[in-house]
Amino acid sequence: MERAIDIQLEDLKKMILLMGGHVEKSLAQVTAALLSRDVDMFNGVHDIEKLINEDHIRVDNACMHVLAKQGPVAKDLRLIISVLKINNDLERMGDQTVNISYSGKDYLGRKPIQQQLNDIQKMSEIAGRMVKGSLDSFVRGDVEQAKKILLMDDEIDALKGKVFQDAMAHMKAHSDDVEAGMDLILIARNLERLGDHATNIAEDVIFAVTGKDVRHGGKFG
Amino acid sequence: MERAIDIQLEDLKKMILLMGGHVEKSLAQVTAALLSRDVDMFNGVHDIEKLINEDHIRVDNACMHVLAKQGPVAKDLRLIISVLKINNDLERMGDQTVNISYSGKDYLGRKPIQQQLNDIQKMSEIAGRMVKGSLDSFVRGDVEQAKKILLMDDEIDALKGKVFQDAMAHMKAHSDDVEAGMDLILIARNLERLGDHATNIAEDVIFAVTGKDVRHGGKFG
Repeated sequence: MERAIDIQLEDLKKMILLMGGHVEKSLAQVTAALLSRDVDMFNGVHDIEKLINEDHIRVDNACMHVLAKQGPVAKDLRLIISVLKINNDLERMGDQTVNISYSGKDYLGRKPIQQQLNDIQKMSEIAGRMVKGSLDSFVRGDVEQAKKILLMDDEIDALKGKVFQDAMAHMKAHSDDVEAGMDLILIARNLERLGDHATNIAEDVIFAVTGKDVRHGGKFG
Repeated sequence: MERAIDIQLEDLKKMILLMGGHVEKSLAQVTAALLSRDVDMFNGVHDIEKLINEDHIRVDNACMHVLAKQGPVAKDLRLIISVLKINNDLERMGDQTVNISYSGKDYLGRKPIQQQLNDIQKMSEIAGRMVKGSLDSFVRGDVEQAKKILLMDDEIDALKGKVFQDAMAHMKAHSDDVEAGMDLILIARNLERLGDHATNIAEDVIFAVTGKDVRHGGKFG
């Protein structure tokens, strides 16, 4: 027989998935805007941001409600705490996509430099897979999948380092391109942060399922 | 007569204050390291980071314990949720000071440029006051003080914009200084983020005390 709290916990998971879908959409849209040089697509991100912000408040309220009504303990409590944290990370991811839209619009107003766009596109693809994968691991309580997300973060960090190095070398050689190079560096940094937030989610999944805290160098497995 | 939960909530507040003290110390140390060009001081930040990470896990566990044992509702529940969020923000602030130590060490290895250090020092001072003020408003449940923190964030954002502009102008004129300028830009960005986290804390205080959600453009007062 299903407990009342099980239905509420399933609802929380659905809300998180919906919110994650909005974050994925926002990331895909800013990336497409950057690659296709489309200012309108950048502007459209603010509509998605509103949805994410509404999700953010809705999830917090739903968690408060379950905590107050059910007084959950053990695994149920860990799940709700994880939802609160994941909610926070998803909202920050939304902020990062908005930051990308600002830097991206600045970038479109400048003399084009292209060298780093390929790596930025790769970073965005990895970040998108990390968002999707971390939430999938959350909904299915799949610790093995969550551990894979932690490894993907290394790829995105390496690409960020490459964009930084290449852009700075270009800026040294072409002083006219200092601003455009800076825009791309900031975008790479935003994408790296997006990956960090997905990593946080994966760590929360491991905690929710196993009760093990793998943050701050705690070892899993 | 005091309820058992009141003692536990007071303990949570004390833990947050202790953690906030560690964050303030870390910020002061990286700033002093930068201004006095002292690599050892940058390295010493990792000892403080360990304390902050321990605080982070300890506070989460204490919140889980109170939630599981007391099944708190209404204002007590809001306070605990706020502690969970503040805990998160303080930990991220600690990360920002560590990021500053990395960029700062890179910066010390380069030909010195000084132009932006004055503004960076001002940013650090404001960020430090924001950390202290936001936690003070939390412990005292002082909504008026929390609102003042929200205004201080504008000052720090303006200074960040100035550092960005000045550093980029310098980088355009002196291509040898592209890396050093970038280090200072990244440090300014880390300080801006520190201010953002203090703003989050102030918003959490307003929520904990009044039950009003002022995030995402919600109006207070």
